[in-house]
Amino acid sequence: MLVPEGFLFSAVSCGIKKEGKLDLGLIFCNAEGTSWGVFTKNVVKAAPVILGKKLIKEPITKGILVNSGVANACTGEEGLKRAQKLLSETSKFLGISEKQLLPASTGIIGDQLPLEKILPKIPELIANLSSENPLLFSQAIMTTDTFPKIVSKETKEGIRILGIAKGAGMIAPNMATMLAFILTDGEVPKNQFKKLLPKIVDQSFNTITVDGDMSTNDTVYILSSNLKNIKNWKNFENLCLEVAKELAHLIVRDGEGASKIIKIKIKGSKSKKEAKKLAQAVANSPLVKTAFYGEDPNWGRILAALGKTEVRFDPEKVEIYLNGIPWIKNFKVINKESVIKEEMKKYKLELLVKLKMGKVSYELVTCDLTEEYIKINAQYRS
Amino acid sequence: MLVPEGFLFSAVSCGIKKEGKLDLGLIFCNAEGTSWGVFTKNVVKAAPVILGKKLIKEPITKGILVNSGVANACTGEEGLKRAQKLLSETSKFLGISEKQLLPASTGIIGDQLPLEKILPKIPELIANLSSENPLLFSQAIMTTDTFPKIVSKETKEGIRILGIAKGAGMIAPNMATMLAFILTDGEVPKNQFKKLLPKIVDQSFNTITVDGDMSTNDTVYILSSNLKNIKNWKNFENLCLEVAKELAHLIVRDGEGASKIIKIKIKGSKSKKEAKKLAQAVANSPLVKTAFYGEDPNWGRILAALGKTEVRFDPEKVEIYLNGIPWIKNFKVINKESVIKEEMKKYKLELLVKLKMGKVSYELVTCDLTEEYIKINAQYRS
Repeated sequence: MLVPEGFLFSAVSCGIKKEGKLDLGLIFCNAEGTSWGVFTKNVVKAAPVILGKKLIKEPITKGILVNSGVANACTGEEGLKRAQKLLSETSKFLGISEKQLLPASTGIIGDQLPLEKILPKIPELIANLSSENPLLFSQAIMTTDTFPKIVSKETKEGIRILGIAKGAGMIAPNMATMLAFILTDGEVPKNQFKKLLPKIVDQSFNTITVDGDMSTNDTVYILSSNLKNIKNWKNFENLCLEVAKELAHLIVRDGEGASKIIKIKIKGSKSKKEAKKLAQAVANSPLVKTAFYGEDPNWGRILAALGKTEVRFDPEKVEIYLNGIPWIKNFKVINKESVIKEEMKKYKLELLVKLKMGKVSYELVTCDLTEEYIKINAQYRS
Repeated sequence: MLVPEGFLFSAVSCGIKKEGKLDLGLIFCNAEGTSWGVFTKNVVKAAPVILGKKLIKEPITKGILVNSGVANACTGEEGLKRAQKLLSETSKFLGISEKQLLPASTGIIGDQLPLEKILPKIPELIANLSSENPLLFSQAIMTTDTFPKIVSKETKEGIRILGIAKGAGMIAPNMATMLAFILTDGEVPKNQFKKLLPKIVDQSFNTITVDGDMSTNDTVYILSSNLKNIKNWKNFENLCLEVAKELAHLIVRDGEGASKIIKIKIKGSKSKKEAKKLAQAVANSPLVKTAFYGEDPNWGRILAALGKTEVRFDPEKVEIYLNGIPWIKNFKVINKESVIKEEMKKYKLELLVKLKMGKVSYELVTCDLTEEYIKINAQYRS
């Protein structure tokens, strides 16, 4: 793993989650860090989101403190107080200003942070800080995730980018939270981050929010230790985007109960807005998702999903391809149903829809809908 | 069953569906009927929808011809020709103009109507016409429905209203079709129907289209034999609405895999538009639906669903009630979780959300999301 210079990681178990699982993680920046963040647009915002939105405006950021098990959402004034208390206590031990630590939480909505369990563990959390612990940190932020999500890259000039995320994709991640942290040692002024991060998120994490569902806690932070000068900005920007895209795809791959990953590509649309609407309608249709799960080449469901958006197009002109194999043209099945059915058995699928209305394309990644999703979500708390 | 005067019903099996099931149904009006219709807004419209939209403008309607098994959607020119041919052949045998018969279809999208199987059965279909066959008719229009849906009422002055529907509710009905036919012997001029029907549909069938999913074939026809004079219009209108509402609720009750019926009530909204958005967000949230299925009082999911609509409200002011029992107030659980959990075991649930932002209310009926839904939809064609 390529860990950027200037970062230390730690994780402990406070007993918020059951069975002694890791549930508190810290990323510490050993230098004068700069940061930015992108947050959920949900009207119901968790306490750490409310605080984080303010704290990213501070000139220096020294770390990110994350707990899992409790989302600290719908917790009112008391929730804000507790999140604040947790930040200030941890900062005190770290010897930094409490304004230099960014918060994030994920877990059950409505429960207060059990500070009586968390605060006594802070000294241990800090004592464990090490550049070798990103994996432990990534485990501490998991909820229904079945594997930790880490991606790292290095530019030709040796700038490192490390991404850590949590989220078990499907519709909205269970308990609705997607967290991602992107760390680098490349020097990036705050103003540059403000432009870069939304652009990256739009092309990565936003292309997997498959049904427009939004959590109370969704947060993406980017944080630099500023220890290395970036000469090739373009190369750096591209690698940041790659890290974010790979993390996003790992989230879909870990989609609750998912048995297949499906890329939905819309081509030949009149505008990005329309193409996005169409891609989302197909990606979010339970009938399309269950047909993919059942490996049933039921193309009518795809057309019906496209049609419900009220985007204007000529249904008869629509062409559909599966993994590059021509499927539907002029309402006719081009290749035998058995060919498509066989192709549908693959784990990775690409559904291409050509509209022939214009020149704009858009793509989304989603997964299928299985009985397992129902089981996970019906029994999450019991 | 209260069958309105002037109507005859029939059904036969043409072999479109498997195992000799009834798949062609006819309603015949023995008098000078008037009609109106409301159709799917899906951009992809089935052939019978395209024809039906024109035919309801005719001054006289003598009947409704419906097949199940094949939707005749995404079938192009050939599909229109076949639908037209079916209407003209049936009209010929009935001795009426082909413009006096309304069409509807439900089933697989993309397949052509197998006229070679259907046309030879028309004489038998007509020979079987009887005022005693509404049940047979209702069976002939079923697809994944587990029971036929019939409701009948009579006004104080003896005007009868009979409603017959199909649809197995859930998200969009499987293969996406909801059909409903409302028949009456009360005299109603076409212009009156044009005003009445959209109003009724808005308050009945549109309050169960829980995720905005729309089929290629959705159709509601209203047809009168005009044999009885209506004196109390208000009473008549109310009973028509009741018939439609009861049919809509029967569709939800037959929701694919549904184990519970849930009424979602939003109170205290600033506008109907906002209240509707909020109700739909809750009703369509897979996380809320699976929590109800799992009888898990996970109220955070309800607030998160409300919040994702971007309708402005104060989350902390929101009050939530289940079957009248206070549940959430100021982000606090009012009654013990065990009380709510016990209540959730009931089959019929009412979730009331008070926003305290205004005076407008809106309600929707939905069902939970279960493994059975996935099974039905993953295996529909295989």
